[in-house]
Amino acid sequence: MTKVTILDIAEHTGVSAGTVDRVIHNRGEVSLKTREKVLQAIKKLNYEPDILARSLASRKTLRFAALLPEGSNPFWIKPAEGLNAAWREIKPFGIAFEEYRFPYYHKTKFYRQLNAITESKPDGVVIAPVFTDLLQEPLQKLEDSGIPYVFMNTQWENSNYLSFVGQDSMQSGRVAARLLDYCIPEGGQILIFNFISSKGVNSHLQSREQGFMDYFMSEPGAGKKKILTINANTQINKDIEDLLSYHLGLISNPDEITGIFVTNSRVFHIANALEKIKQANIRLVGYDLLDENIRHLRNSRIDFLIGQKPFEQGYKSIITLFNAIVRKKEVPENQFLPIDIITKENIDFYLNL
Amino acid sequence: MTKVTILDIAEHTGVSAGTVDRVIHNRGEVSLKTREKVLQAIKKLNYEPDILARSLASRKTLRFAALLPEGSNPFWIKPAEGLNAAWREIKPFGIAFEEYRFPYYHKTKFYRQLNAITESKPDGVVIAPVFTDLLQEPLQKLEDSGIPYVFMNTQWENSNYLSFVGQDSMQSGRVAARLLDYCIPEGGQILIFNFISSKGVNSHLQSREQGFMDYFMSEPGAGKKKILTINANTQINKDIEDLLSYHLGLISNPDEITGIFVTNSRVFHIANALEKIKQANIRLVGYDLLDENIRHLRNSRIDFLIGQKPFEQGYKSIITLFNAIVRKKEVPENQFLPIDIITKENIDFYLNL
Repeated sequence: MTKVTILDIAEHTGVSAGTVDRVIHNRGEVSLKTREKVLQAIKKLNYEPDILARSLASRKTLRFAALLPEGSNPFWIKPAEGLNAAWREIKPFGIAFEEYRFPYYHKTKFYRQLNAITESKPDGVVIAPVFTDLLQEPLQKLEDSGIPYVFMNTQWENSNYLSFVGQDSMQSGRVAARLLDYCIPEGGQILIFNFISSKGVNSHLQSREQGFMDYFMSEPGAGKKKILTINANTQINKDIEDLLSYHLGLISNPDEITGIFVTNSRVFHIANALEKIKQANIRLVGYDLLDENIRHLRNSRIDFLIGQKPFEQGYKSIITLFNAIVRKKEVPENQFLPIDIITKENIDFYLNL
Repeated sequence: MTKVTILDIAEHTGVSAGTVDRVIHNRGEVSLKTREKVLQAIKKLNYEPDILARSLASRKTLRFAALLPEGSNPFWIKPAEGLNAAWREIKPFGIAFEEYRFPYYHKTKFYRQLNAITESKPDGVVIAPVFTDLLQEPLQKLEDSGIPYVFMNTQWENSNYLSFVGQDSMQSGRVAARLLDYCIPEGGQILIFNFISSKGVNSHLQSREQGFMDYFMSEPGAGKKKILTINANTQINKDIEDLLSYHLGLISNPDEITGIFVTNSRVFHIANALEKIKQANIRLVGYDLLDENIRHLRNSRIDFLIGQKPFEQGYKSIITLFNAIVRKKEVPENQFLPIDIITKENIDFYLNL
């Protein structure tokens, strides 16, 4: 096949080559309808702009921005590495990139940073939407300015996001349920442990819990198990051991608790607590390959960790913006990453993902 | 940092630029010692040859070859796809690629194809070393001609391979053991089921079995379980159900068999057999995302599949040759791919790996 050119697109759509060029370069006035027609032709004819030559010629710098928690929350180190690794690859095409960070749990700072982004009018944004109740207005501003945004790690349905990159949270709850179902004998009891902020449970942790419950209600082969939920606000409940002991004490026969599902990466707190209150026979499943979690996986206090490819989350988010904005490619609405099941036997092969 | 050139390498090693050029392009006479010195300087100064310009200028075509089983054995479809996907990426650098296939289990054809490769004197080879007892002489020929070879999927230690791309078989046996250990109550019995050829057990299936046994002998938390091994030669034992029934009949109390570990991708045969002899409460763990296996995973007759990223095995093998031969990069001796644990809940996110 010969290379498709701007002239082919122009001929196919019945507009001038100059108009096609304006659509491709996002400059000048083009009616929405014409723009749509040109983009469809680009897709249909599989036109691949000569992006390097073009960006060198136009000398226009595109700016991408990302909003994510600070690395003091260890989960967020790898997504940041992924964002920056992708950026290094696309930098030669004249792309600038700026990170906007906020302390995890710090709502006002999150809001201020998100507004700083909308005001700087970048060409594309990656957002980790930690506080979903604050999103409506800033996202509306982005949409009004025609700035596409990608959700990383957490999804928020009530918006016109370009793409979501992360795990299917509900399904990952089902995976956790499957694992504990295998580990625990008929009649055993399972605790679901949610770490919450004063705002309540984070939406994707809720989805994980829901997927977990769903499994036991719908899976035909699932053994009969009693399931209890504990919500712990760490700003109030400073001492996890006390809290856990207290809750185990409430249960008529605490020895019947044979499994705990922690819905986020703070499962190491529960491993520490179980160690201190000398409960060794409880199976423990949680999330993410943090150093503290890995230590407990290796010493068998944690049985399974569910990995969510944090590096790839960041990497793919930036590449998605690049594909949509620079390469004019259609990008998938949802990019679900694998739900990795990690034990002490296969952990070594997942450490850099 | 400014770009390192051939002149920098020459200055650093005290040889002429022409000699450096000869080393980089693998042409003309260069003493082993000088060659070694130049390669070390290339590595130290982090010299990156301008490979596209160079291959266009030299117009020399490099030839890569791969030896692997035919796609009639369904496991081998994806590695072949991976090989070809990688080749399409490096084709613009003037690389030709030829596949040499043989019917799985067909020893003489394997040997003939391997000899056809050595006689064609390619620039680099990927080998799936299915019949290890036939390798010595042909590999020696490759080494004598200075042709590097990469092992894909299976490792054979007694050789000077450039790199191995695949799973750590022993460790993947340990993963399988961990999973069955969780599923099966204290005192339960486990069968290891090996499909063998008339040649005996394939070496990497042996490693899987060994890793499995090791786990139960060494893991402090592992419950006491009895483990039995069945070796089934499918050229003799045509009917797997009969064979399985027969072996279950030999056991004093067959209801005590609560788990089966199948050491390769033919686990669907056992799932079919268990279905026919109406044994529903046996936990089943095996390998690879073949369509038949996926079907049984979805209908809960298989509990866990272990994935070994077959596409990536092929892809990385070709890229490894490219990095070593064209880009003059040092490549790792062993490239172990993740040992993916797959259940019916996370299978959908692994189908294209």
